[in-house]
Amino acid sequence: MKLENYIRVVEGFPTKEISFKDISPLLADPLATHQMVAEFNEYVKEWKPDYVIGPESRGFVCGIPLAYEDHLGFIMARKKGKLPGKVISKSYTLEYGTATIELPENCLKKGDKVVLVDDLLATGGTLAALEDLIEEIGAEVVGILTVIELTDLKGAEQLKAPYASLIKYPH
Amino acid sequence: MKLENYIRVVEGFPTKEISFKDISPLLADPLATHQMVAEFNEYVKEWKPDYVIGPESRGFVCGIPLAYEDHLGFIMARKKGKLPGKVISKSYTLEYGTATIELPENCLKKGDKVVLVDDLLATGGTLAALEDLIEEIGAEVVGILTVIELTDLKGAEQLKAPYASLIKYPH
Repeated sequence: MKLENYIRVVEGFPTKEISFKDISPLLADPLATHQMVAEFNEYVKEWKPDYVIGPESRGFVCGIPLAYEDHLGFIMARKKGKLPGKVISKSYTLEYGTATIELPENCLKKGDKVVLVDDLLATGGTLAALEDLIEEIGAEVVGILTVIELTDLKGAEQLKAPYASLIKYPH
Repeated sequence: MKLENYIRVVEGFPTKEISFKDISPLLADPLATHQMVAEFNEYVKEWKPDYVIGPESRGFVCGIPLAYEDHLGFIMARKKGKLPGKVISKSYTLEYGTATIELPENCLKKGDKVVLVDDLLATGGTLAALEDLIEEIGAEVVGILTVIELTDLKGAEQLKAPYASLIKYPH
């Protein structure tokens, strides 16, 4: 099974210059979803994490199957104001303006090992900010995985932890 | 294991009159997540669905573990404008204003059996609209599951398909 066959490319979404890579067909097919987890585990078995963290909201849908299969805890990283209770947060620069990513306060303790998972790596801003935030509290990002990587955008250069992707497109 | 012990109640979120029921501790504990799926499956084994559908975004995190365990396809129901490509949509009334829930066009065919999953049933507006939308395209909602039910709000009365919840609070 080639996972690439379960990605739908939608031109002009969300803005006209974007060629959107849609993981919906992958999620809608249980064999493809299990294959995604098996391919992620080729990396994760070396990294031995305690937790999977995924950013809102396609990071949830790609990270939770991995966490479930490997019996790891899953933690939601969300946009500003979406998490209840006390949070820790990190702002980062976008092409136009800034964004903020948040985690629940005390969701990790020092030394916890974390794998970050998202659907797609573009410029890497969100994952790099999340990596910084996790390191600031003394936990360790042991690896970062995305289903898709847009290689022309060189987002991997923004990341410090080992990084791997399953499917590559130029942009 | 009592799943209720993995729900954190946060008073005053997102608005001051709300007592928010946070499923984060349940997700962060793999035994609790697997227990949630096992309790869901007490119902799902009778319903024999083809797909799990969950509304953005806590419906993703509660529905995907069930879909993964049972080798069912998962389909994301999203707020207006979040899904790429052609969509089908249903608007519904909230206390103040309206909201719209969307599914990808052609994500289901006539006769497909669907279980809807969300974290929480309050007034039931989103799940009732989703149920109507799925029925309009000729698929069948065979059951609806939420982790939490706020019983005073009587959301279950809005639903047509068999409904079950794992943890009950008055409000």
